This record gives sequence, structure tokens and C-alpha cells, in this order.
Amino acid sequence: MGEFELLGRIRERLPATSVRTHLGSGDDAAVTVPGGATATSVDALVDGVHFRRELAGLAQIGHKALATALSDLAAMGAEPGEAYVALGVPPDLDEDGCLELLEGMLPLATVSGTDLAGGDVTRAAQLFLAVTVVGHAPGPASLVSRQGAQPGDALVLTGELGGAAAGLELLEDPEIEARVMAGLATELRRRQLEPQPRLGAGRMLARSGATAMIDVSDGLAGDAGHLAEQSGMALRIELDEAPRAAGVEQVAIAAGRDPWQLLTGGGEDYELLASIPPERLEEAERAVSEDEGLPLTRIGEVARGSGVELRLPDGRLLEPEGFDQLA
Amino acid sequence: MGEFELLGRIRERLPATSVRTHLGSGDDAAVTVPGGATATSVDALVDGVHFRRELAGLAQIGHKALATALSDLAAMGAEPGEAYVALGVPPDLDEDGCLELLEGMLPLATVSGTDLAGGDVTRAAQLFLAVTVVGHAPGPASLVSRQGAQPGDALVLTGELGGAAAGLELLEDPEIEARVMAGLATELRRRQLEPQPRLGAGRMLARSGATAMIDVSDGLAGDAGHLAEQSGMALRIELDEAPRAAGVEQVAIAAGRDPWQLLTGGGEDYELLASIPPERLEEAERAVSEDEGLPLTRIGEVARGSGVELRLPDGRLLEPEGFDQLA
Repeated sequence: MGEFELLGRIRERLPATSVRTHLGSGDDAAVTVPGGATATSVDALVDGVHFRRELAGLAQIGHKALATALSDLAAMGAEPGEAYVALGVPPDLDEDGCLELLEGMLPLATVSGTDLAGGDVTRAAQLFLAVTVVGHAPGPASLVSRQGAQPGDALVLTGELGGAAAGLELLEDPEIEARVMAGLATELRRRQLEPQPRLGAGRMLARSGATAMIDVSDGLAGDAGHLAEQSGMALRIELDEAPRAAGVEQVAIAAGRDPWQLLTGGGEDYELLASIPPERLEEAERAVSEDEGLPLTRIGEVARGSGVELRLPDGRLLEPEGFDQLA
Repeated sequence: MGEFELLGRIRERLPATSVRTHLGSGDDAAVTVPGGATATSVDALVDGVHFRRELAGLAQIGHKALATALSDLAAMGAEPGEAYVALGVPPDLDEDGCLELLEGMLPLATVSGTDLAGGDVTRAAQLFLAVTVVGHAPGPASLVSRQGAQPGDALVLTGELGGAAAGLELLEDPEIEARVMAGLATELRRRQLEPQPRLGAGRMLARSGATAMIDVSDGLAGDAGHLAEQSGMALRIELDEAPRAAGVEQVAIAAGRDPWQLLTGGGEDYELLASIPPERLEEAERAVSEDEGLPLTRIGEVARGSGVELRLPDGRLLEPEGFDQLA
């Protein structure tokens, strides 16, 4: 298989590019006219680290690579624009496999308005995908960083936590399924294998006055820590307020894990955590639930100080397990 | 080593970002205000494929990863803006090694005006770097694609060919050095290990009316083929006109290789091949040689038709060896 032949077959399958993209895949570089501010992020996924080929289909791996990259744009409140994919192809992945990976990206690319505008394909010992995404906004002030949380802001979370971590437990040990209520396992595995970036909710939160925002990719404890540190604030979170995906406690108990640790340390839910002035909260909740069909839940508040308090229902504070792993 | 700690140490070493970059490394995404057209390209380099750790220093690997990505911007005539680096770190590369890789990028980043605006670090079985670069131009019309070559255009080449391929032969078989004129081997190895993107020359060629342009990364035969195909034209190249790096013939003979194949198939010289109307040629030659200190040499012409003719000094045509490898 030649690189150029593969790239040609990939290009054949790409939809036409948007008006913003003047020159797409196949030249030295893609040409776009952004016309405002851009938000750019890169995410690398490696076999055995972020996914395992024996546990995930190739299309799911492709989807997840694009989804995790787009999740960073969601956390800025940006509108997705272009994606560039660097693909490392191991000896046991043939051309059809590469196309299956790419085709796994297309539904999400289409629904999110993302042009697959370029890429690079190379031999590698293990499968990897590095996806760079570029999002757009009218100006820098429309984008939400991690730095603006203010004392008194409400801390809000989209969706539910713990589903992806529980799904991973189920994938790693299929015997757990027998101890989980029927029908829940499939949905939990889907949360792990096919995460959905909260692009619409991110834009709604940005428009509704979110002062800081981050996506929950490393776990609530870790990502709240980043937001606290970069805003120079303390975050106080009531864990009982955080919506939990159905079945998370059952899976945690069956796997012999502390449900609160699974909830706060597991990561990969790709929900959004944002700070927002309390007077804008109602508007934001309505926008996210009506337009996106997602719950937006107040789970805590921002205060002067530093660090993150994760309060358990009995009033004790949770000591998070390590989350600062190179992954 | 934690990912966040490493990223923190990396950020400490980065120079301040340019005015265009509103928010650099360390948030969900970098925020820039392009203010015109952008050219974006991604290049992945993998240990054992594009470099070998036993033959190259870590700083050289970092430099080469950025240089090869920037070379695509040179080939568009774009001004470098931002770079985003996804780094796959194998078990035997420690934190200091990662920093050495990154520091190898800084001199080129600084001299070219490139902000290292973001990135991602992950564990991996083998070292890889995927570098996305974003270049800027006043508008799409200022950028030069591969598509615009016209019949009668002159075909021009910056610099000299064959140095990088000869350098690789020297690195792979150190005994060849004894059969090469003293002092030449060091420079040839440097051409392989520390390629220089022709950014200034690319902008000069764009301003001087280049109708199509490509960087010579896969070898003259292959890259001329891409330009011919994407412009829908035939290219006729007189190989004797193409400047050869000093020592290339000696290395080729010592390595038992056909010098013409080494010159046209070796790739990695990262010189620019461009088509330009003959009446603009003198202006372009003067600009590239005066401002960049690089020769710009007419090596052939564009004609109606398809394919590439590589004419040898005796009038025969060179049959290029395969170059369409997945690399």
C-alpha cells in the first residue's frame, strides 16, 4: 500500500469542504479564511494507552479520536471548523482498516460541521492518531478559557459522570455484566467507546456568560483542579449533586472499586465543567436542556483560595486517587 | 513523570507568544486571531521510519520534526505562525529527554517566528512526533498551491539536491566516509539530520509570481509527479541543470548506488520546486539569492500533457525507482 494511494482513497470519501476551506486535503497545506478568532487543540490517542484494538472497533477508535479533540473546542465554546489527522499505521492494519478508522470519524465530522481538511499517514509500530482541530469564534472574547472563574460563581456540569469509567470496567472484565441490571451495560460501554463532545452545550454556556470552562477528560477531580489552578480560585463541589450515569454504582461495587473514585477519577466522560455567575444560571440551564437535551446541574461553587474540595454526602472530603498519569 | 508536570516544565521554557496568539499552551485550546488566510499542515515523524534514535540526537529529532512541518508552509509561501506538537513518549525516554527534543525545536521556532502554541504528551511504544503548523497570508490568493502550473512556465529549484540522501548513506554505513573527500561528510550528514525549511525563499517565490510550488520531501521525481498531476500538466526536467550537493556522486558510488537515483529519489532535501512565468524568473532569482543567499536554478519547463520527464545528460530518460512508499 502506498501512502499516496491511501490518501487518494481517503480523499474520495470526504464530503465537500465548507466555504471556509479554500483548499482541502491533498496539497502541501490546507487553506482557510478564518475571519475571527480560532481555537486550536491537538490530541493524540495511542493503542494500549487511550484505547485497545481488542476492545474497540476501528470505526469507534476513529470516532473517539475526533470526539476527544472536538471536546477541547466544546470547552472553549468554539464552533468546529477543520480537523487534521496524523495516522500511524502498524503492520497489521491494512488499507481497508485505515479507511474504516476514517469512516468512523465521518458521522461526527458531518453532524458537527467539521471539515477533515488534511492529514498525514505513516508506518508505525503501534496504531496512533493525532488529531488537530481548529474551531472558530467571532473574536477571542467569545471563547472561554480556564482562567476566568470568579468568587461566588456557580459551578455547573453537563450530563452525567462515571459512565465512561464504568464502561471501561465492563470492557476489561465482561463477567461484571452479570452483576449489573439488564440493559445498562451496553449504554455504559458506549459511553467509553463512543464519547460525544458537548459542542452545542459549550457554545450555549459561552453565550450564557460562563467565566471558565474545561472538559472532563481526566476525571472531575483532576479537571476541577486545573480550572481552580488556572483561575487562581478554590472550587467546592458537593459530590451528591453530580448526576451519575445509571449503573455506575453497581459496576463499581462489582469491580471492587469505590464508586466515588470511579466517578471523580475515571475521566473520559467528556462532559463540561463551567463556572458561571449565579444570575445567569437559569438562562444557561434552559438553553442547554432545551437545545441540547442535556441536564445542566449546579454541583458547587467558586470561592477565593486554591484547590478543590470534593465533599461526600456524609460531609467528609474525598481524597482523590492519583490522576496525574502520563496517558 | 506526570503529563501535567512535564507540560509545565515545557511551558516554562517557551518564549512569550506573539501578538497573534492570545492564549498559548496550557488551556483546552490555543486562541489566535489570524486576520487573513491560514495554511495548515500536519507531519508525523516516527522512530525507525523518519529518523533513528541511534543515528540522531534528540535535539536534532525535534528540529527535524518542526522543520519538515514548516517546509509545507514554505511550499505555500506562507508566513509561519503557530505549531502544535503531539509527542508519543516511549518508556526509555525520560523527562529530560522530552525537554531536549523540545529545545531542539526552539532555535528554528525563534528564527522562523513560530509560536509553540500547544501540544499533547502521551505514552507510546515508540517515539513519535506529530507537528501541526499554521501559517498566515493576507488572503488565499497570496498562497501558492500545487495546482496552477501553466504551459511555458519555467520550473525552478532552490538550493541543491541529494545532500540529505547522501547524508543518510553516510549515517547508515560510516565506512563510506573514508571514500569521500575530507570535510564533505559532516555537511552531508547535517543535511539529513538538520534540514532547513526554505521559508524565506517560498515567500519570495510566491511574491514573484510562482504559479505552483511543492517542497522536495519525497524526492524530485515523486514531488515533481505530484505537481504535474495536480496542475494537470507535464514537467520536463533536465537533470544536469539541477545543482547537486558537493560529494553526492562520491557517496553514491561508494554506496554502490546510481547517483541519479540518489539525486531524484532520495528526498528529504526540503528544497522548493516551483513553476513561474519566464518573464518573472529574473526577479525571483535575484530575490531568492540576495535575500536568502540561496541559488534558484531553472531546471526545466511546464508543458501541456501529463507526467514527468527526467532527462539525463546523454539525452536518455531516467526511470525513477519506486518512491510511493508509506513512510
